[in-house]
Amino acid sequence: MIAKTPKPPYYAVIFSSIRTEGDKGYSEMANKMVELARLQEGFLGVESAREELGITVSYWTDLNAIKKWKENAEHLIAREKGRKEWYKFFKTRIAKVEQDYEFEKE
Amino acid sequence: MIAKTPKPPYYAVIFSSIRTEGDKGYSEMANKMVELARLQEGFLGVESAREELGITVSYWTDLNAIKKWKENAEHLIAREKGRKEWYKFFKTRIAKVEQDYEFEKE
Repeated sequence: MIAKTPKPPYYAVIFSSIRTEGDKGYSEMANKMVELARLQEGFLGVESAREELGITVSYWTDLNAIKKWKENAEHLIAREKGRKEWYKFFKTRIAKVEQDYEFEKE
Repeated sequence: MIAKTPKPPYYAVIFSSIRTEGDKGYSEMANKMVELARLQEGFLGVESAREELGITVSYWTDLNAIKKWKENAEHLIAREKGRKEWYKFFKTRIAKVEQDYEFEKE
């Protein structure tokens, strides 16, 4: 669902990916990584959708929180498997959210 | 597909949305808006995926290009229809991309 993030500024990690064929343990690991990310200090939320292209955006308080998550041991193993097995191509973008606004239908 | 963006810094507009039921002209307008966005000065690319949640990330050279696109007359009409008909909820985040990296399988 749409992440309930605080007032900007905060950070977004935009992860865009094209998968290889077959699951090969991907779904289980993806769920596990979201659960693990939620436990990290500075984690604010995550949004995800996939068609042919997958987009996952995770939100963080600051660059240091992102760095620590990048260095998390279990995450390192998952990222290694990602390069070896699950992804044909991916691009990660680290961005500082400066403004946000939302709309909800009455 | 994954947008071929230049070296950072550049800007991302992360648009996360929950649709109402039925198409009601949405798909046609969505395609038209992507075609129109491509013609704007400062447009760098767009990525999109939808499951229950939809995520569209468009990339722009700077805040001024984003502002001009927001004020584009046809886009204003589409955004008004979005609030009236197509979206239950959406959140827009404007973020400055500071770093990016990518991976491609050999």
